Amino acid sequence: MKFTIQRDYFINQLNDTLKAISPRTTLPILTGIKIDATDNGLVLTGSDSEVSIEITIPAELNHEQIVMIQDKGSIVLPGRFFVDIIKKLPAADVTIDTNAQFQAKITSGQSEFNVSGLNPDQYPLLPQVSEDSVITLPVKVLKNMIRQTNFAVSTSETRPVLTGVNWVIQDNVLSCTATDSHRLALRRLPLENNTIENINVIIPGKALNELNKIISDEDESVDVFFASNQVLFKVGHVHFISRLLEGNYPDTSRLFPESYETSLTIDNHEFFHAIDRASLLAREGGNNVIKLSTASEHVELSSTSPEIGTVKEEVKTSKFEGQELKISFNSKYMMDALKAIDNSDVNVEFFGTMRPFILKPQDDDNVIQLILPIRTY
Amino acid sequence: MKFTIQRDYFINQLNDTLKAISPRTTLPILTGIKIDATDNGLVLTGSDSEVSIEITIPAELNHEQIVMIQDKGSIVLPGRFFVDIIKKLPAADVTIDTNAQFQAKITSGQSEFNVSGLNPDQYPLLPQVSEDSVITLPVKVLKNMIRQTNFAVSTSETRPVLTGVNWVIQDNVLSCTATDSHRLALRRLPLENNTIENINVIIPGKALNELNKIISDEDESVDVFFASNQVLFKVGHVHFISRLLEGNYPDTSRLFPESYETSLTIDNHEFFHAIDRASLLAREGGNNVIKLSTASEHVELSSTSPEIGTVKEEVKTSKFEGQELKISFNSKYMMDALKAIDNSDVNVEFFGTMRPFILKPQDDDNVIQLILPIRTY
Repeated sequence: MKFTIQRDYFINQLNDTLKAISPRTTLPILTGIKIDATDNGLVLTGSDSEVSIEITIPAELNHEQIVMIQDKGSIVLPGRFFVDIIKKLPAADVTIDTNAQFQAKITSGQSEFNVSGLNPDQYPLLPQVSEDSVITLPVKVLKNMIRQTNFAVSTSETRPVLTGVNWVIQDNVLSCTATDSHRLALRRLPLENNTIENINVIIPGKALNELNKIISDEDESVDVFFASNQVLFKVGHVHFISRLLEGNYPDTSRLFPESYETSLTIDNHEFFHAIDRASLLAREGGNNVIKLSTASEHVELSSTSPEIGTVKEEVKTSKFEGQELKISFNSKYMMDALKAIDNSDVNVEFFGTMRPFILKPQDDDNVIQLILPIRTY
Repeated sequence: MKFTIQRDYFINQLNDTLKAISPRTTLPILTGIKIDATDNGLVLTGSDSEVSIEITIPAELNHEQIVMIQDKGSIVLPGRFFVDIIKKLPAADVTIDTNAQFQAKITSGQSEFNVSGLNPDQYPLLPQVSEDSVITLPVKVLKNMIRQTNFAVSTSETRPVLTGVNWVIQDNVLSCTATDSHRLALRRLPLENNTIENINVIIPGKALNELNKIISDEDESVDVFFASNQVLFKVGHVHFISRLLEGNYPDTSRLFPESYETSLTIDNHEFFHAIDRASLLAREGGNNVIKLSTASEHVELSSTSPEIGTVKEEVKTSKFEGQELKISFNSKYMMDALKAIDNSDVNVEFFGTMRPFILKPQDDDNVIQLILPIRTY
């Protein structure tokens, strides 16, 4: 194998490939990046066996030569170490030339590295995902959906299904649900131009996080392919494959009550920052609990910690309906939920002091954040 | 005590005061910031008993009111927690009002905190430094001197004096020396406008690091006062006091040989980056050792690690005198030394394969970096 490539472009693609690679792996070859020089260009593969990333570097892009392949072939090179070398090389181009013993000679300017690689035949085959069940999403929408739900997945392995996000397609509506059993985030999206069979899968939260980092706002759309135990995201030259979590996701639909006892509309920014300040004291006190009590034209937030002190915040409400209410909540859950609501006005609906309450953007039912209160009153 | 202060200005001064405060302290009151409201303005004090910082906030600055003091008095407030509160408050001003039980009411906009403070009488008194022995340095020069020597102090407590920088004033020349016994950094500065008695002190490297972070390029000059066991740096409204290290600093003057066997001049930038690349492999191999061998018009750098691979770099020399030479060194020490040499051309003088070599900016003897080689050839 021998090729010469534009170093800056190579670095960007290598960095994305690295995102699939974990330094802690049971299979040592997976700490490496597989490089295939083919007729179609260069293919980079990284995998931690849960998530795999495959990036194709075309020979030309916008009539500019990116990579010149002199000899076809494959090798696996030590991931992070190889990328560090490429980053620090002195010239604009780098040439990589491998021999039959999987030694790679890397040259750029007056710099020459000889690095031991591994036999690419020992690299595991990537799962093949059939391209039958596909939906196409704008990149911005996908990134938003991940941002609005992913934070609510469980970080505990006690119930593994809760570490993923439940993607359900039914009647041409995609619903993404995440919950750690203390709070829940739901995002719905009508799929206008897709006719697809019903789907119900659980995608690991970690994989969605990595996907979110890799897909760039410059790309327009993402194709998502669902298979029985894998999901494939195709965006530009990148193929991102994640295994699905096994098991049944809990039915969360019954969590949403019908009619509220108390409803208010409040400025997202002001509410968020008042909670952020009150949480300083709540956190210092060790419990993160903030009390909220309603009045006709504002809410009062407070927190008390006997050793440290007290805090009191007032935030105006623009609408208030129903009964007066006192309720306590975890400040972090509330701030996460408010961040997931893009609208500047937030509707908060309460169903009593002991029951979960929900937050929604004003006049939009496609984002719902649900939080369990804490018993203090 | 009661005062109202511009919040942004307050935050900056609090952040600087925090730099003296360590969360790990044997004296709990030292996790706090002492605030004195006086006729001259507000005085903030932070200390970890090794380093103390005292910042005076004047009532007015450039005809603009910064702080309005309604009642004089003092309090100690919990350092980091208090600063976090001030940072997040909603309005441009903040008012702090304390009572006789050392409770502080902090108000800004619709936000109100009540925080428990401590009795300022229990705060240790800052050391008094007599202002007899003083030198004045331009801020830029002081910052450079710290940058050019401080990295070479020892991080091991085996020989405590080596964790400091030896400041010696003799015959109106200030010499700063740091060594960890593997390499040494020396910076000399003629003191043209100072007539000062001879001085020989050891300033802790950590204190100089903090000082470097606090003094800003906007300030023009620093006054340095030496006492028997303290040093005081006065810059703008900031007083920075550090204890001195006790003990005798080793005599390092005999380390510098008279005449070289080999001398070369090389481009700083190219030499640094070639070593940086070679060190990738040297580090991966676990020993950080790079070999250098001279030729008439270039040096060759190389490193080998049997499992991982090899690297070879060539860097042109602009001048070469004396005998051919092969020598090995620790890549980190070499890169640290090159960073401390501001000149684009570096003179390297060797005194044989087994003896320390030195690096200097071309045509400047006021910065000398000395490195012990590693025996490999």
